Formats: sequence, structure tokens, C-alpha cells
Amino acid sequence: MSELEQKAINTIRLLAVDAVAAANSGHPGAPLGMAPAAHAVWQTMKFNPKNPKWINRDRFVLSNGHACALLYSLLVLYGYDLSIEDLKQFRQLGSKTPGHPEALDVPGVEVTTGPLGQGISNAVGIALAQKQFAATYNKPDFQISDSNIFVFLGDGCLQEGVASEASSLAGHLKLNNIIAFWDDNHISIDGNTNVAFTEDVLGRYKAYGWNILEVENGNTDVDGITKAIEAAKKSDLPTIIRLPTTIGFGSLAEGTHGVHGAPLKADDIKQLKTKFGFNPEESFVIPKEVTELYNKHVSENQQVENDWNKLFAAYKEKYPTEGAEVERRLSGKLPEGWEKSLPVYTPNDKPVATRKLSEIVLSNVVPVVPEIIGGSADLTGSNLTRTTDMVDFQHPDTKLGDYSGRYIRYGVREHGMGAIMNGIAAFGANYKNYGGTFLNFVSYAAGAVRLSALSHHPVTWVATHDSIGLGEDGPTHQPIETLAHLRAIPNLSVWRPADGNETSAAYKSAIESTSTPHVIALTRQNLPQLEGSSIEVASKGGYTLIKQDKPDVIIAASGSEVAIAVDASKKLSEEGIKANVVSIPDFLTFDKQDQSYQLSVLPDGVPILSVEVMSTFGWSKYSHEQFGLNRFGASGKGPAIYEYFGFTPEGVADKAAKTVQFYKGKDVLSPLNKAF
Amino acid sequence: MSELEQKAINTIRLLAVDAVAAANSGHPGAPLGMAPAAHAVWQTMKFNPKNPKWINRDRFVLSNGHACALLYSLLVLYGYDLSIEDLKQFRQLGSKTPGHPEALDVPGVEVTTGPLGQGISNAVGIALAQKQFAATYNKPDFQISDSNIFVFLGDGCLQEGVASEASSLAGHLKLNNIIAFWDDNHISIDGNTNVAFTEDVLGRYKAYGWNILEVENGNTDVDGITKAIEAAKKSDLPTIIRLPTTIGFGSLAEGTHGVHGAPLKADDIKQLKTKFGFNPEESFVIPKEVTELYNKHVSENQQVENDWNKLFAAYKEKYPTEGAEVERRLSGKLPEGWEKSLPVYTPNDKPVATRKLSEIVLSNVVPVVPEIIGGSADLTGSNLTRTTDMVDFQHPDTKLGDYSGRYIRYGVREHGMGAIMNGIAAFGANYKNYGGTFLNFVSYAAGAVRLSALSHHPVTWVATHDSIGLGEDGPTHQPIETLAHLRAIPNLSVWRPADGNETSAAYKSAIESTSTPHVIALTRQNLPQLEGSSIEVASKGGYTLIKQDKPDVIIAASGSEVAIAVDASKKLSEEGIKANVVSIPDFLTFDKQDQSYQLSVLPDGVPILSVEVMSTFGWSKYSHEQFGLNRFGASGKGPAIYEYFGFTPEGVADKAAKTVQFYKGKDVLSPLNKAF
Repeated sequence: MSELEQKAINTIRLLAVDAVAAANSGHPGAPLGMAPAAHAVWQTMKFNPKNPKWINRDRFVLSNGHACALLYSLLVLYGYDLSIEDLKQFRQLGSKTPGHPEALDVPGVEVTTGPLGQGISNAVGIALAQKQFAATYNKPDFQISDSNIFVFLGDGCLQEGVASEASSLAGHLKLNNIIAFWDDNHISIDGNTNVAFTEDVLGRYKAYGWNILEVENGNTDVDGITKAIEAAKKSDLPTIIRLPTTIGFGSLAEGTHGVHGAPLKADDIKQLKTKFGFNPEESFVIPKEVTELYNKHVSENQQVENDWNKLFAAYKEKYPTEGAEVERRLSGKLPEGWEKSLPVYTPNDKPVATRKLSEIVLSNVVPVVPEIIGGSADLTGSNLTRTTDMVDFQHPDTKLGDYSGRYIRYGVREHGMGAIMNGIAAFGANYKNYGGTFLNFVSYAAGAVRLSALSHHPVTWVATHDSIGLGEDGPTHQPIETLAHLRAIPNLSVWRPADGNETSAAYKSAIESTSTPHVIALTRQNLPQLEGSSIEVASKGGYTLIKQDKPDVIIAASGSEVAIAVDASKKLSEEGIKANVVSIPDFLTFDKQDQSYQLSVLPDGVPILSVEVMSTFGWSKYSHEQFGLNRFGASGKGPAIYEYFGFTPEGVADKAAKTVQFYKGKDVLSPLNKAF
Repeated sequence: MSELEQKAINTIRLLAVDAVAAANSGHPGAPLGMAPAAHAVWQTMKFNPKNPKWINRDRFVLSNGHACALLYSLLVLYGYDLSIEDLKQFRQLGSKTPGHPEALDVPGVEVTTGPLGQGISNAVGIALAQKQFAATYNKPDFQISDSNIFVFLGDGCLQEGVASEASSLAGHLKLNNIIAFWDDNHISIDGNTNVAFTEDVLGRYKAYGWNILEVENGNTDVDGITKAIEAAKKSDLPTIIRLPTTIGFGSLAEGTHGVHGAPLKADDIKQLKTKFGFNPEESFVIPKEVTELYNKHVSENQQVENDWNKLFAAYKEKYPTEGAEVERRLSGKLPEGWEKSLPVYTPNDKPVATRKLSEIVLSNVVPVVPEIIGGSADLTGSNLTRTTDMVDFQHPDTKLGDYSGRYIRYGVREHGMGAIMNGIAAFGANYKNYGGTFLNFVSYAAGAVRLSALSHHPVTWVATHDSIGLGEDGPTHQPIETLAHLRAIPNLSVWRPADGNETSAAYKSAIESTSTPHVIALTRQNLPQLEGSSIEVASKGGYTLIKQDKPDVIIAASGSEVAIAVDASKKLSEEGIKANVVSIPDFLTFDKQDQSYQLSVLPDGVPILSVEVMSTFGWSKYSHEQFGLNRFGASGKGPAIYEYFGFTPEGVADKAAKTVQFYKGKDVLSPLNKAF
């Protein structure tokens, strides 16, 4: 390592230390330890700080996101739209340098990390998308996609199950574009990793089918790190490189958990700066020659991007169809008129399970929207997520598919799937990707789902077997709290369509989405096609399906309970009670409508009863009375369970009649009418 | 294997096949493949079908819970309180043989399984508890606890991250009482495991520090299985045994995923019965000699239990203190007067963060309640879950603790921790166990948390850093939807105490609980001790803290927002508005109070405003207006974020004033007043 390189590394270290000190909050330990690797990696990466979304850039994922002072320092040094002033505002309200890296707010941050295990799993998704994109569009003479994905991860990430799931799949898929560095510093928050984490990490990754490499000394051996990167690039397998480092390298407390998550003391910072050849009285210093070194790499990279632009121009000439498609995808536009492929239904069409209706949608749209790729967590035959002409995404050697395949066999790995889906979305190129499992098991992936919403990844969960209607599998598989959980996540669309048109509306919303993830909850059992539904009305998220003159009561329902509400309404009219029926397939979309529309659906003056076969939690925002299931379900035949819990036209009519009775003579205000 | 053994195995197989056929639903494949191992394992196990909770029984965990027809058949054959008639009612509503094994409903089922990966992780918890119990009470001449934990698991469980987490920890802890059988049948729902799961499973477990063994042929080699069990019992490490089997062994479709989750066809069942030497026209047949074989084992086991009873009687004589303590714990009674150790506070006591108040509770109760053990997912110093005199639960060779230690270093493994906690509770002996993490990361463990609630495991999550108040770590760490998610789970107590007395009340509820799991959400920031709080009133789950004569408005809040509401109430009185303040530390407990009490807190005639710094979802069940945070948080100093979002006395007073204004002249019905 040259003296200049040493200075560059120390500059990274001290910027991170100064940022943490200025905030009096943050994690100086990992930046001090990993700065040499960061320097070495970024010096080999291709990227353009002025065009940070360039599709063929190499990606850098900081899976140990708490070390973000390291990443922010790199972004400043390489001239991203992040300044030294931003660094001085580290972890302050309204700054561009939040406490963990947020892809939405910080230019150059690929994925939001911090919740451990997510970053490495996102990286698997980015790598998968890169392989799929390359296999779809590269031509023998035009390698328009060939980027690598670099990952830093610590012991925390390696302990998380989500990382295990994603890493196992990456090994199976032989995603050799992943180059991960394990920061082996023997320290986590609880102290030495020997208190809880003594497994043979490299042995485990070898068992997953990864290429394993080791650097002798991560604190000093930049050449070794560079050589490891070169070796990794030649591997047929994903690579993990053990990087032994000293947490808090150079600090008086180096090698202890004391430097993990607390600022260094003032005198420690001073001795560190002196030790590193910096002025102990100055902060946030960037030596001129370091700026020049990094500018040089940026200039070289500018040439790399220019070359790519020329390559792509020639590609478009030689392959105009593919070229136009790539261009369209990079612009984020869907194929013109794609939505005409969405199926529509009339009440004369036969009853069909919404999971099956979902399959019909996919069968129609997958051929016309090439950026749709999907998969399932080992429930393909139950989720009905694989259309007949989809090819599996597999390494070609397996003879089970190839890298241009659009169907991903995730295995029984829901959390890994969720994080990988986020990575696929983060790759870019307008990927719209979905993953199937039972609604109940979306919960396994809760950590990834909230990050989809926070990071605006428009991924879609095809969540079948959405209620007690699944029957015999019983309470362990029947969602009760799941919709409440998901509906409470900001920026998450949670659709529960009631029939074919609503299912098409759900997919229309999901596929057109650019910043909102979707969960589509689908039945195992058949549902009739409703009179009055359409893609258009369902696209409002909530609408009146049966409208009466001066109704006595409104029954608001979702999914499989809408048809029951319709039948209940008919029963009630026999008793002289006029009941409107409202379908609310997606709370988030309904909440986005203007208030006058919302109040036209759920007006003042009429008591509202909600009906849904799961927890009533949250339904009181739309209703005065709630009929649901605030207990776990039961194992038995689906229809028998519905009957047992009273979710029948008679049962619902009875609750509605009681609602009418109770509110008779009382002033009734719509729950949507609010004081502020 | 003797002819009789072969007949016994085939009896198990055919009972399972007949049960699935009768239900026309279920999973015949794994029972057909694993019956030989089931026979071999149960013939070595010590247990008493008439006393299924005997503390020193060996445990059997069917982690691949969909194979429950296998387990139910064994329970019938060994004479548990489950009959052939129950088996005929497999998967029917109201039966004792639900679609997946439920510990609560089926005598002899140790833990509820079906959601993949949970069973093996529960087994790690059972094993951990056994070691802790044995190390605490065994004496050189009295091995009162020495049981083993047998586990069956399939490829599905092995792909789940939760199983990876728990298995890694089991290896670290050297829990050599675990003997797991991997049903290596190469089939999952998506077909051959080669589509998604090609890792070297035994290599991975070796890397975790497990003893790995293989049986040559799991379909036929009962002696090999028995020998493997003997070898496993001699190991110093947990053991996993690769058991190559043929899914659906004997069926015409054996070896395919067609036999995984669908009943066999009638003619297939007939040929199977003929092949196995049974009458093809008969169903649910138990040959007399098979009954005798299994009865013999039960009789031998009765002697084993009798011997144990004698041993324990002698133990009590020689070690009366320990004997009495064990006896008390087995009776499920807490130590007399333990609750006197709970701290109480007055308004003169200084402001303290509830995470710190939680630490004070633990410091007081851990010494007087020996069945309390706990840990943290690598956030010990932040969760404050380790009291100063706790010893780590570690293998003694590590010199970091020993097996009688009561503090578990879970590592960064939240989901594994949740499932292990369930296992510890399932062991028995009145274990009250807790695990710490940030509230936001309880979501990682959602799959385990809902099973705690479903299975009535009284475990406790110490969930600190419970809101935007955590500050700089930012949106990735700040819960928004988390409380809504948890509150919507049936039978889950979700406490968010507002001060010291409420924290003590939360722990009182948790420690006294025998069937309800608890989450205790705790602040990072300091909170004042409230005037009017007490353990007694807080134990109602909701109560009036500030009571005015003819109030204009009620402000209902939880946790850190209660003190803000109190200050808002003072501000409002300056403006001539009388505001009651209600604290609702736990929805579930409040919901259990009689309606007249509830209505005394939230009466008709007064508009109610709820205040909580996270999703308002669900609060409309208690309030007319909701002030909360229906978006993700922000990175910055905690107080600055509170201010930014308006969670200040002024901000709350403003919302309250608007609420009063809006409802002026309107009839206001308490949201607790319901039509049905």
C-alpha cells in the first residue's frame, strides 16, 4: 500500500470518527476497521457519482448499516451529491445523513440497511436481477450488463436467519457476481463473539456452495484485499472473503465493544489523528492529494461509462427491438397498453378462487410485460404463481432453466424472499417482481416488508390462503392479525380482492406502482363474480357495491366476505331493512381518495358494520360495529369453519339488524368525519 | 428388524394413510417415509402416556408438523388420551386431531408445529431448559433431570432462517441432549429439492458445531437408526442424523411430490395395504401384537417413572430446600410473596427510562424467583436485561458461565430467540423466560410470537427503544406498525408502561401469567413518575389518571405519551377546557375488565382523543379522534423528533381543543358501547 493510499484510508477513518463525534451518536468502530477494504473495493468499482443510477454500475451494499459514517465518507470523497456539511449534520433531524443508510434520502446508497441481515440478502436480489437482465439482453458481442455487487457485512448480519436463507439460495443459483467481505472483528454489542457466535462461518458458506477466500490482515493489507477481489471475479461461485480487522483500529479502545456504538472520547480522537499524521486540532479534513486520487478514479470511471454509452448505442442499432425495450425499461415506463391484458368479468362468469384469478392475471400480463419476474417460497402449486410458459431462473448447468428465466424457486425461505425481492427492485430496470406464499407466512418476512415500504420498493406479495377459509390446515396457517399488521405499515398497499375484477384492479395497482409495495391477499376457496364490480371502481380502494335509497345500515367488507354481505343484504331486505354493501379491497388506496368521495361511500347518518373473518383491529376507523374473529381459527373444512363462526348471510344479517336496532334514534357520525 | 417391528411400522404407516384418506386432506408422504424412524425413536424414549407432563420424560418434536398423522398414530398406539375415533376425525372441526399438531389441544404433543422451522427451534429451547434445570437441581448422586429431545425435521425446516439461528446457537451451547433426524427425501412442495436447496446440509451443521451422523437407509434400517441414537447419546454435541427416506414409501407415487400433501388414491391405498400384509378392505387396523409390543414399552416406562419418583422422594429427603423448590415449580406456583419485591414509586421519584425501570424490576425479582431466566439478542447493554448477579448460561468449558446460568446470550437472532423462548416455556417447571431486543425487531420474530399466543406460552419480550424517542438510529429502527401488529394477535398482552409503577404492573402480569405471552414496550428516554399511578390501578390495563368533574374531553395515551397528555391537560385547564387523562398500558388486560369499569374510564358523552407516537391503527376502538404517526419516523435527537411531529403538551392540547370544538353539540357515544 502506498503512502497516499494510507492517507486516503485514514481520511475515510477520520471523517467517520469526526461525523460520529459531531453527532455525539453513532458507530465509529466498524468504519475504523473497514476503511482499508472500503478504499480497495471502491478503487476497483465502476460507478458515476453524477449519474448514480447508471444501470451498469457496480453496486456497494453496506449490510452492517450502522457503519454508515464509513459509507457517507466515501460518498463525500467521491463527489456524490453529499457534502462535508452534510457529514457535519450526521444523524440530525432533516439531514441527508440519517443514522442508518436510507436509499431514498441519500444519493449513492443502493439499499436501506441497518436492520441486520437485510443488506446481504438485498445484494442477492440485486445480483439475481443483474444475471436475469444480462441473460435477457446481453448478446455475444454486447455485454451491456456485467456489474458486480460488493457487500460488507459483520457478525450481526451473519447471525440473522434472513441472511442464511438468502446466502443458501445465492449458492444454489451460483450468483458469482457477489463479492462479500465478512468483517471478522470478533466483536458485537454483547462483547466478544465467543459468547454466542462460535460457528465456522467459512465452513457454513462453503456448505452453501460459495467460494471462500481469506485476507491475512484487513487493517493493513490493501494489496491482499485487491488480490482477493480479482480472485473473486474469476470464480464461478459467489464469494465471501474473511477480512480479519480490529474494530476501532487505532483508537485507545480498539478491539473492544466500547468502540462499537459510542463516539470516541475527545482525547482518543486527538491521539488517533496524531497517530494517523493528521492535525489533532482539525476536524473533517480532506487532504488535497486524497481528493485527487479519488477524482482520478471518477474520471477513469467516466470513461468507462462513456464506453458503455457507445456500446449501448451500437447495441440499439444492431438489436433495435431489445434496445428499445431496454430503453423503455430504463425510463421506468410500462409497455404501451399493457393494462388491456387484464381480464374483466361479469356476474355470469363462474365462481373462481381469487388465487386462481391471480394466476389468470399473471398468465395474461407476464407475456406482455417483460420486467415482471416472480416466484414462490416453495408453494408454487398452491400460490399458482408460475404461469405455464415461464422458465425457471436457474444456473444453466442445472438443465432446470437458465438465467433468463423469469420464475424464481425461492425454497422455503419467506424472509429471504422478501429481502431478495427488495434487491431485485433496487437493481432498477423497472423490475416488477412478486413472490408467493401463504398470507400467514408473510409475517416471517415482516422485517423485509417494512423495508419495502420505507424504501419505496414496488414489490408484490401474492399471499394466498388468506383466511380461515383455507380450512383443514388449521390455526397455525390461518391469518388473524396479519392484515392489521400489514395495513398499519405506512406506504404498503394491502389488497384483498373480492372477485375477478377486483383482482385485476389489485394487479393494476401493483404493476403500475413505482414506490409502493403491495400485498395481494387471495382466497383458496371459490368466490362469485360480483354485480357492480369493475377494475375502475375497485381502483378507488373502496366503493359502494349495493346502493339503496336511504339505507338503514352499511355493511363494509373485503375479499371473501363481500359476497356474504351481498347475500346478507338480500336477506335483510326481506326483513324490511335496507343495507348498502361497500367493498374495501385496499385501505391505503381508499385513504388516498378525497374526503367527499370517501363520505359518499361511508356517509354520516348511517351506522356501518364491518365484516371480515379475522381480527377486527383497525376496522373501527371505517365502521361503528365490527364483526370479525378476535381469536385463533380452527381446523376443519373451510365452509364448516365459516358456518361455525357465523360468517354466513344469516349471521351477517343478524349482526346488521342488531346494528340498526342499536343506533335507532341516535345521531350517527361517519367515522371518516374528523376533528383534525 | 423383526417381523413384528415391520408390522408395527406398517401399522403406523397405514393409520396415517387412513386418517388422511378419511379427511380427504393432509400429508401421507412423510409418515410413510418416517415411520421406521418414529418406531425406533419411540421405542428408546422414556415417557408415560398417562402422565404426559412428567418432567423427566424424553421429548419428541415433529418439526415437519404437516406429518402430524404420523404423530397422532403414535399417540393412539401408545395409549395417550387419543383414540382411533379421534384419528377418524382427522382435520375435522372440533376434533382432537387438527391439521397440524397443536400442543394445547392434543395430549402428548409437546409444541405446536406446522409453520416450518419452529419445531427444531423450540427443541433447542426445550434442550436449553433441560440443561438449565439439570444444572440447577441435579446432585452428584441424584440425576433428577436427564432427558433427551428427539426431533424430526424435513428439508422445509432446514431452509428456514429461524432454524439456522437456533441451530447455530445450539452448536455454540453444545446442547448434546438434542437428537435430530433430517428426513432427506429430496422432495418439497415445488418438487425435487434440486430446484432450490442444494447446499451441503451436514457440512452446514458441522460448521455449527453439531455431531453429524448418517443412516444408510431410513426406509428399512431400524437397527441402523437405533445404533445412531445410541451414538448420538454419547456425543458431547447436539446430533443431526441424515435419514435418507422415500417420501410416500410403498405408494405407487412414492418418491414424488404428488404424495407430499394430497391423500393417496383409493386403489393406491389398497395395493399399499396388500403390500404391507394388511387386509385391503379394512381401515384403521391395529394388530393385537402391535398393541402388545407398544404396551410392553409403556409398562417398562412405567417402571422408569416409578424409579424416578423414588429417586425424587430420596432427593427431597436429602436436599429439602431444593426438593421443595422443585416441587413448588412443578406445581406451577410462584414463591410466596414474590410480588413484594416489585418496586413502587411516588411522583417525587426522579424521571427514569422505562427500560431502566425494567432493569430495576429484574434486579429485584430475579433473586427471589428462580424460574426466571432471560437473555437478549445481542443488545444486553441497551435492553438492560442482565442484572448484575446473573451468570451466563454457557457450556462450562467456555469459562464464560455454566449451565446453571440464568442469562442467555442469544446473539443477533431474534426469530430464533422467540422460538427458543417458546421451547423453554414448553419444557415446564414453571419457567418464566424473557428475551430482549428493540421493539422494532420483535417483528423479525413474528412467526414465533404468534405461536407463543396460540400455544399459551407465557414468555416475555423486553422490547426497548419503543418509538421515535430512540432518536438518531432513525426510521429503520423506529416502530410505527409494531404495536398494532402485536395488539391484533389474540392472547398477547402488549404493555407499554408510562412510569415505574406501570412497569412493575407489566412485570406482575407477565410473571403471574400461565397462558398469555407478554411484550413489554419500553422507552430509551426518561419519563417522570406519574401522580395517580399504582401497580393496582395499572393492573386493570387502563385507568383514569386525571379525573375532572364533567370533562370536556378525554385524552387516552400509553407509555411515553401519558406524561405529555398530563401536561396537555394542565395547559388545557388554563384555556378553560377540562381534560381527563386515561392511561392504557395494555389493551388485552383492559378488554378483559367488565364493561361497567371500561365505561367508567371511557364513558358516553365525552369525546376521546388518543395519543401515541406511532400508527393510529386500532386506536379508534377506544377513541373518536387519533393523534399518531401514520408515516415512518426520522433520524435525529429524540426530543427534536417529538417536537417536529408535534408530540408536545402544546401539540396535544391543540388536538384536544380541536376535538372539543368538533364534537360540541353532537351526541357522543363511547366507542366501547356496542350493538352486539
